Amino acid sequence: MAKDVKKELQKLGDKILQDIEKKENPSIEIPIRALSNVVFDKKLGQLTLGDKTAKRYYFNVAHAKKFMQTAMVASFSKQLIDQNIHASIRDMFYNLKRTLPDSNENTFDEQSESDPIIVDLEVAIDVLREQLHLTTDRKGIVAGNVIIQDRGDSIDWSKLGSGGWSIPSTVDEITFKKVEAEFVLVVEKNAGFERLHEDKFWQKHKCILIGTGGQPSRGTRLLIQRLNQEHKLPVYVFCDADAYGAYIYSVIKSGSISLAHVSDRISTPSAKFLGLTISDVYEYDLKKATIKAKDVDIKRAKEMLNYEWFKKNPKWQKELNLMIEKGIKAEIEALSHKGLKFMSETYLPDKLKKKDFLD
Amino acid sequence: MAKDVKKELQKLGDKILQDIEKKENPSIEIPIRALSNVVFDKKLGQLTLGDKTAKRYYFNVAHAKKFMQTAMVASFSKQLIDQNIHASIRDMFYNLKRTLPDSNENTFDEQSESDPIIVDLEVAIDVLREQLHLTTDRKGIVAGNVIIQDRGDSIDWSKLGSGGWSIPSTVDEITFKKVEAEFVLVVEKNAGFERLHEDKFWQKHKCILIGTGGQPSRGTRLLIQRLNQEHKLPVYVFCDADAYGAYIYSVIKSGSISLAHVSDRISTPSAKFLGLTISDVYEYDLKKATIKAKDVDIKRAKEMLNYEWFKKNPKWQKELNLMIEKGIKAEIEALSHKGLKFMSETYLPDKLKKKDFLD
Repeated sequence: MAKDVKKELQKLGDKILQDIEKKENPSIEIPIRALSNVVFDKKLGQLTLGDKTAKRYYFNVAHAKKFMQTAMVASFSKQLIDQNIHASIRDMFYNLKRTLPDSNENTFDEQSESDPIIVDLEVAIDVLREQLHLTTDRKGIVAGNVIIQDRGDSIDWSKLGSGGWSIPSTVDEITFKKVEAEFVLVVEKNAGFERLHEDKFWQKHKCILIGTGGQPSRGTRLLIQRLNQEHKLPVYVFCDADAYGAYIYSVIKSGSISLAHVSDRISTPSAKFLGLTISDVYEYDLKKATIKAKDVDIKRAKEMLNYEWFKKNPKWQKELNLMIEKGIKAEIEALSHKGLKFMSETYLPDKLKKKDFLD
Repeated sequence: MAKDVKKELQKLGDKILQDIEKKENPSIEIPIRALSNVVFDKKLGQLTLGDKTAKRYYFNVAHAKKFMQTAMVASFSKQLIDQNIHASIRDMFYNLKRTLPDSNENTFDEQSESDPIIVDLEVAIDVLREQLHLTTDRKGIVAGNVIIQDRGDSIDWSKLGSGGWSIPSTVDEITFKKVEAEFVLVVEKNAGFERLHEDKFWQKHKCILIGTGGQPSRGTRLLIQRLNQEHKLPVYVFCDADAYGAYIYSVIKSGSISLAHVSDRISTPSAKFLGLTISDVYEYDLKKATIKAKDVDIKRAKEMLNYEWFKKNPKWQKELNLMIEKGIKAEIEALSHKGLKFMSETYLPDKLKKKDFLD
């Protein structure tokens, strides 16, 4: 994988060189990432970028600095790949920040200048940040009957005690040696992960258990996609019964607006929403453990009613409307109201058996 | 360990029973946790609770509800220990929340009511929340030449690829099978952990590498203390050069005001501050990679000048005063300004060799 990216980076440099040799104004072509160029691809079930592009020119007062920055980030990434090391996006900022000789002009003043350049590069040469060896903060834990190979180590996800494996920023370099599971269960809350992990849910139900700790990191989303695509495992997402939970699900499934350019590489369109739903609250007698929805929750739920991917789905319309009408929300921890093992011994087996999912 | 805690919980119940049998007003004695009862123990080098206590009575309109809540939490913990399972503090809230028969009165309305009861119980019977089988969110990663036993699994911290071992909430139940290290290096930032982990710093320098991801979790602090006390490993803390970094260090070393009652069980008084310092900024030519301190940073640094444990230390006085005078701060990522491997190949080996630490 790294080899292709290096080639793409070289092609970018060669193109600039050719412009110079042809005595043309050197330029870099970059797809536009504004909302005006984000579309929902119904066939793929994903948010993607449209085909509008813009050119960044060297001889253009408004473009020159960004042109230089783009070239610097591309060169930095190539060095990372050459040396086979990784850097955080903050490390990169500090490494590239300097003052141009005989001037007071800095290459970069703030990280907020270098971060978008990384995304420009991602879309310009159509690669993932992780493939450029640039890392983001790690988040997420995994357990299951899986053995992987990572940086020369063989790691057995079933033998990590209470800890689980901490999902790193870059999971495109791991190799799956053994995957014994029938599905992937993604849990929004770490507390839910701990409960299910302690109850050995993944062992009893032959699944891979992933805790995202809120909105999943890119690394976690990529891992979910790889397990789905490479190992044909269905993915079930288990979140709070509120608009935020529904949004986490939709990000895993369809991507997000800000990362629309990488949707196809980190989202999982076939993912299904297992629960918690407001209907579950009544079905499993959890009314006592619900929370009054705040104005912002109701507002968010109303917005989501009109999301492209919820709009045409009667089940989602029903659940979102229930949130609004009843004015309540429920966390997955609410299941503890019926007993600590209710989640792993009753609720989840029941939902999985009935295949009571939302699409 | 679990056995003793169970005995303590039983003693608490027996005491209430005896009160009833003696026809006395049942009561629970709880040390006061207000600032007025927090003292800095100079000999131990820790914040601890003083000896003021208060009694919570059953027949007292102002106490009755809290009395009931305390008994409920104690009973819940005993059940967890009996069943050998763990619960998050949020799970506990949902589990115990109910409406008293023939009334509109709930046992607990909000988690903000059950959380302090847990701390009451911690101080009343002098145990840790973790020993009551109540968990908090996990945070922190570790790597090194160590093999532990946890929930029946043998886990080798040197063979976890890029991921490292995710430190769970409860580390008092793990057993160390092999510890081959000369010191513990605690890094405030995950990005720093990633850098040092990728460079195999822990292997080359025979240390255990711990990433806290900001303010360390209780589990991470307990792990640091266990490695220090049980394996006599010196602990070096590596943070940003700002007041927040100094505070993280002081929490690891001396405890915090809100957790003063458990300082002796989760802090490490012999820990030393390795860097980053403002002096380092000048020593290693990092001026270009510093950030202008905000008003809040300066205010915080001024407050810390008067902290008991910084007040009598000339080196800390010098560093805090430098922050204030120069009006700058620096993150550990700033070291990338001198090259990505500068941290692992130059800065840290240099500091460790010179033993250039702050106490």
